[in-house]
Amino acid sequence: MNSNIVKGLICGLSGLLIWFGPMPEGIKPAAWQLLAVFTATIAAFILQPVAIGTASVIGLATVVLTGVLKPGEALEGFSNTVIWLIVAAFMFAKGFIKTGLGRRIAYLLMSKFGDSTLKLAYTLSATDFLVAPFTPSNTARGGGIVYPIARSLCTAFGSEPGPTAGKVGKFLIFSSYNGVIISASVFLTGASNNVVVMKLTQELFGHTITWSQWFMAAIVPGIACSILIPYILYKIYPPELKKTPEAKVLAKQELTAMGAMSRSEKVLLFIFTGALMLWATSSITHIDSAFVALLGLSCMLITGVLNWDDVLGEKGAWDVLIWMGVLVNMAAYLAKLGLITWFAKLVGAQLAGIPWLAVLALLCVVYTFVHYGFASNTAHVMALFSAFAIVAVTSGAPIVLTAILLGVFANTCSTLTHYACGVSPIFFGSGYITQSEWWRHGFLLSVIHLGIWLGIGIPWMKVIGIW
Amino acid sequence: MNSNIVKGLICGLSGLLIWFGPMPEGIKPAAWQLLAVFTATIAAFILQPVAIGTASVIGLATVVLTGVLKPGEALEGFSNTVIWLIVAAFMFAKGFIKTGLGRRIAYLLMSKFGDSTLKLAYTLSATDFLVAPFTPSNTARGGGIVYPIARSLCTAFGSEPGPTAGKVGKFLIFSSYNGVIISASVFLTGASNNVVVMKLTQELFGHTITWSQWFMAAIVPGIACSILIPYILYKIYPPELKKTPEAKVLAKQELTAMGAMSRSEKVLLFIFTGALMLWATSSITHIDSAFVALLGLSCMLITGVLNWDDVLGEKGAWDVLIWMGVLVNMAAYLAKLGLITWFAKLVGAQLAGIPWLAVLALLCVVYTFVHYGFASNTAHVMALFSAFAIVAVTSGAPIVLTAILLGVFANTCSTLTHYACGVSPIFFGSGYITQSEWWRHGFLLSVIHLGIWLGIGIPWMKVIGIW
Repeated sequence: MNSNIVKGLICGLSGLLIWFGPMPEGIKPAAWQLLAVFTATIAAFILQPVAIGTASVIGLATVVLTGVLKPGEALEGFSNTVIWLIVAAFMFAKGFIKTGLGRRIAYLLMSKFGDSTLKLAYTLSATDFLVAPFTPSNTARGGGIVYPIARSLCTAFGSEPGPTAGKVGKFLIFSSYNGVIISASVFLTGASNNVVVMKLTQELFGHTITWSQWFMAAIVPGIACSILIPYILYKIYPPELKKTPEAKVLAKQELTAMGAMSRSEKVLLFIFTGALMLWATSSITHIDSAFVALLGLSCMLITGVLNWDDVLGEKGAWDVLIWMGVLVNMAAYLAKLGLITWFAKLVGAQLAGIPWLAVLALLCVVYTFVHYGFASNTAHVMALFSAFAIVAVTSGAPIVLTAILLGVFANTCSTLTHYACGVSPIFFGSGYITQSEWWRHGFLLSVIHLGIWLGIGIPWMKVIGIW
Repeated sequence: MNSNIVKGLICGLSGLLIWFGPMPEGIKPAAWQLLAVFTATIAAFILQPVAIGTASVIGLATVVLTGVLKPGEALEGFSNTVIWLIVAAFMFAKGFIKTGLGRRIAYLLMSKFGDSTLKLAYTLSATDFLVAPFTPSNTARGGGIVYPIARSLCTAFGSEPGPTAGKVGKFLIFSSYNGVIISASVFLTGASNNVVVMKLTQELFGHTITWSQWFMAAIVPGIACSILIPYILYKIYPPELKKTPEAKVLAKQELTAMGAMSRSEKVLLFIFTGALMLWATSSITHIDSAFVALLGLSCMLITGVLNWDDVLGEKGAWDVLIWMGVLVNMAAYLAKLGLITWFAKLVGAQLAGIPWLAVLALLCVVYTFVHYGFASNTAHVMALFSAFAIVAVTSGAPIVLTAILLGVFANTCSTLTHYACGVSPIFFGSGYITQSEWWRHGFLLSVIHLGIWLGIGIPWMKVIGIW
């Protein structure tokens, strides 16, 4: 029998088992039935018998046709401002790739700092860091901007998959992959799963994490990671070629070939800067982040940086719109129907007496390594964030601290495997790194991440008053 | 100066003139400001300085950034069930084209009835009629199914643009174009603008027009049009070749070449039939039409008739999602903010004493011919339906009668020009028909439409109790 059919049956069964299984006391039937559909949908996110969009459409149809939610309720997710922030941000990423502004920034940095392999790695990370606030898709940023540059640098140094892979390739590819993950952790808009975390925190606890709050909390441990992780990789997984004076030359050649900044690049830079400023000051101006992004999109469209067909053809955006619109809404209704409160009370009773810091740290460790079973950061967040956050908060952990830490670890865990998230297969597929190399170094880096975010992050967030 | 810039400035100015112009008494500032943004957006729909999607995004950003609507309010359109009905129906149309089921049905009809040019025209209309309930996009149905068949028939008869255009081409192309318009009028789901009419009627008057209500009201005058209009065209715009025994042979050849029905076609036929039955019985089952469509989409995805990438690549659906989500919501808020009631009171005072039937008939005539100024049926509906419907209803015309008539005339007016709606340029672009031929015959047909829908439609709708 086809393996997808088996997987699909497992997903369906997981839902049916809950639906028809014994319902604990004190829960509304609608909440329990919604949990059943939600579980089946999340199972489909993990096992992927069908595309996650397909699973979401089926889940959406199911909740209404079984009478769990009313048609209007089931579609509420699509008028969520957060969803449209993501859709608009996909369009920013598209502009970045289309105009070549991303490549230009990379080559500019490289022409100044690119004369050693380690500096090159830092430069790639820095580039990524600059772009991350605007690109909530690791796949768009990693696959569309960082990977093409890293890969072409390898070729420029005569390091191809195979005998010459160790020259610079293995190190640069793995280091830049980790750069993508780190930048994703630092900005609320650096990964779509962060926005899910923010949204779930709102739904679960009624707390809104702002863009600048996340940024302030994550910047110090994030910079520590950005400095330490390439350096540690450089030591434990060293490139054979350490000095790379050619990189500066290559970058200068590419910049010359690109010529002066085009009108589109200038316009885009202006729009990006404006959007970044509006996002950073949103706590003062009270302009909704989604509408900053939609304003930016309007400007890109009016100035012709993007045309409407670019927007319609940006499949990733529509994909996220559908599955995120459906799933975030299901999660919201689980909370509205009282299931989360019920769960919190249940767990709260068990955890009495254990210090919250111990509970939180333990949860973060489990939360990280459970990612061996996931192929998507968002699936991870959707499946586990609510439960883990509630257990932590119930034990006394501060809400925003808990949310940001669990948000960050849903990104950093992607270092573990070559299938960890959408962008991992791109870097792994380059053929420079073997699976065993990836897993060994990935495990080590994930432990370092835990150390930095718990050891530096928690005190730092205390200092700036996050908790 | 670039003509698009001029057009854009005109649109912007039209909004500014209202925004800063004298506000009549008894209107909330928010309602007046929303009217300003709405007017500018509709102006952009008509003049098209940018794509209508772009205009919608700009309008959406504007209403929030100027504080007219709150972020959540401005996005409410996207959780409208009607919008998702359209999105899902686009996917049905995609399935129809992808599997070849549409072509098969056409050739099947043709192999039985296709031995004269007039019968061929009727057969094309009938095909269109069968597909229309599932394809709310004239462009998808006309451009994707009907036009390719009509065009390949012309070639089969040696009738090409130029000296041989008159053989069968001119007649068949214009007749099948009119068939697309007629089918669009008969089914609520036959054109996206019909669904807008339904939605606006709900917003304005609190009346929901069901699928079967529209169908019952439109089927008799619709069949009269389907019989009369090809025949009248056959007389006033006759094909040189009148007998076409080759068509039956060609159709049989094509059917043989297609072979037996594929699994996908059978599955799709089953899903289509099921959806049609659920739509037709929705007044009994109370299953929301949009979720019938989403169930159908789920089935198409599970059975592999469509894959998720087909869905994401269906740009037309995302285009409609955006501009319709934005505009229908603006129109809804104009009503919620009291502007429409104010307008109704104003007009009501003027019309006292004139019989409503005269008012309604006059409005239908004006409503038809004003389409010379439009390039989209939906733009027409968005711009004028609310105002015209309110004037009619205020004068005493029954709500549902008014809505269905104005709904129908927004389709039939498309016979007037070669730019009347999305599909017109496809048929005109074939090169068989000159502009003057199109306009002369189109004018005549539009008068015949007015005669049939007012003369037969109004009494028929009385008989079946629509009013």
